[in-house]
Amino acid sequence: MPLTKTHRLLLTLTLTTLIHAQSPKPLPPLILSTQGSFFVGGHDIHSDALSTLPRYVPDGTITVDQMYVHYQIPATKLHRLPITFIHGCCLTGKTWETTPDGRMGWDEYFLRRGFPVYIVDQADRGRSSLDPSAINAVKSGKLPTMQLPDLFFVGHEAAWQVFRFGPDYPQLFPGLQFPIEAQTEFWKQMVPDWSPSLPNPNPTIADLSELAIRLNGTILISHSQSGIFPFQTAAIYTKGIAGIIAIEPGSCPDPKADMKPFLHIPILVLFGDNVETSPRWGPRLKACQAFIKFATSSGVKATLVQLPDVGIHGNSHMLMQDKNNLQVADWLIHWIDHNILPR
Amino acid sequence: MPLTKTHRLLLTLTLTTLIHAQSPKPLPPLILSTQGSFFVGGHDIHSDALSTLPRYVPDGTITVDQMYVHYQIPATKLHRLPITFIHGCCLTGKTWETTPDGRMGWDEYFLRRGFPVYIVDQADRGRSSLDPSAINAVKSGKLPTMQLPDLFFVGHEAAWQVFRFGPDYPQLFPGLQFPIEAQTEFWKQMVPDWSPSLPNPNPTIADLSELAIRLNGTILISHSQSGIFPFQTAAIYTKGIAGIIAIEPGSCPDPKADMKPFLHIPILVLFGDNVETSPRWGPRLKACQAFIKFATSSGVKATLVQLPDVGIHGNSHMLMQDKNNLQVADWLIHWIDHNILPR
Repeated sequence: MPLTKTHRLLLTLTLTTLIHAQSPKPLPPLILSTQGSFFVGGHDIHSDALSTLPRYVPDGTITVDQMYVHYQIPATKLHRLPITFIHGCCLTGKTWETTPDGRMGWDEYFLRRGFPVYIVDQADRGRSSLDPSAINAVKSGKLPTMQLPDLFFVGHEAAWQVFRFGPDYPQLFPGLQFPIEAQTEFWKQMVPDWSPSLPNPNPTIADLSELAIRLNGTILISHSQSGIFPFQTAAIYTKGIAGIIAIEPGSCPDPKADMKPFLHIPILVLFGDNVETSPRWGPRLKACQAFIKFATSSGVKATLVQLPDVGIHGNSHMLMQDKNNLQVADWLIHWIDHNILPR
Repeated sequence: MPLTKTHRLLLTLTLTTLIHAQSPKPLPPLILSTQGSFFVGGHDIHSDALSTLPRYVPDGTITVDQMYVHYQIPATKLHRLPITFIHGCCLTGKTWETTPDGRMGWDEYFLRRGFPVYIVDQADRGRSSLDPSAINAVKSGKLPTMQLPDLFFVGHEAAWQVFRFGPDYPQLFPGLQFPIEAQTEFWKQMVPDWSPSLPNPNPTIADLSELAIRLNGTILISHSQSGIFPFQTAAIYTKGIAGIIAIEPGSCPDPKADMKPFLHIPILVLFGDNVETSPRWGPRLKACQAFIKFATSSGVKATLVQLPDVGIHGNSHMLMQDKNNLQVADWLIHWIDHNILPR
């Protein structure tokens, strides 16, 4: 049977689509005015338990609780405010970089959209140091074993529910946007978490304040465990905090908390899909809704959005790595442009 | 007293110098074709000691011993081989970024000179995960305290000699190039080091091999503790290793070792200043000289250079952060261009 003109056109269109899908058009070069890294916060302590090995001196001064910050500034000047990305539990700043399946992360995408981008490793995680003295002191018999830090790690099986890949390991939610075929690469991002043994408040909170003041205006984008950090930072000192975006926060401020620090800071709390039915995330969503309700009634410009309500479906807890991560980023940038004043 | 013409000229020159020092000419934009991050290596283990806290499941699978890799590729195609930078003891990939006093690190400088740049965090350090099970098992009484890992930290006072800022804390070597006025920022780079408790060989060595194969040709630039890693990587498998530059290695291969793996890999061992008289570094220099002597007599293209012998003085152990770090980089790039074949 000879092909009709319509058939030929359809075939051409299909082949073109296939070729585009298989060899995506190379992106234009990424043009930066500058990039670099530095630390904020940190203080010196003396320890007599820096080592249990004879070849290293146990006594000495070390610096702890500082926070590693990596930044990139785009060459195009769009007067956009710097974004500070803060990762969650058991993860590091890697969260915001290349996705497990090798697509562009939010670090580069926000840059390409004209935002200066700052990415931190929480204090006592990743490239931010921590104090190992308690472990060495227990090993050398100076402290009882109960003084050991709580250094928890979330296994793949338990993480499955936490990250909402599905209702139970290894089931998947229908229409899940997380690139589950690349889960092996995702598991490599996970690290042990010392946060239960850190000083209270977590040193990252004061470090974020120092960073915000230094940047003289930044939008703090937190995630999960760090979700509440920007609120806690604002409660210390609001200077430099131009906006708060809490992505799937583990907790929100208590509705009975003082709302004064938030009066001049636009706030967005953002959740993905399959939240309400999640035994872990459903109650957290409810608590955040209660906070938002009280905050807005107190005059705070605060919003809570569940992505399905704006027509974006299937997002996991790791929505910055989901297959539609750039669509979610576009939605966020639109929100920023309409709710947070530029420089 | 009126100023003479010479006085006025001197004043003008001095002011010009001051202005230049205070407002350096802005650099041209940094133009990248791509950037991103990924992991190499790693394997799954089962643990029943992931947590001692009731709110986290102690049983589960975690992935450990993988190595975090961040990369940037310049837009200019100069057919230069990718550089892989590997940090040393008690530090992370931060080593190669912005210097403690805020100048450009080798990460950006090598990029600007046309090299694709890969920076790793050694396995079990920084953004590369580690297994905390032993700590939790001791805390919950399943293991004796002697099974705790050796998690050493080098205090500022002991590090002073290790990094060769001076003969003894807090004395300085005359003409020291390290930006000692920014030492506070440098101390913030230091992290605890688990290496004594890691599997032997250190997992980073196999991870580097996987990376070299994946890059299909890279120059491994190691430092201090990691100094010997590229040699150990080559001893497993030479594929992908286009050159080895060991900067102030803590050790060199045994002169009695098999030299076959090194026969087709150009090798440079580089030391800074004040090495011979250092109780720690003098013997290491001697051992490396013995290796180079035996390697060259076996037909290996290997060189050891002490920077003062090529007219560059005052360099500390952290020469990638010294005030003349770009001069040292220029010297290195010249060596690479004359000793390692491009793609």
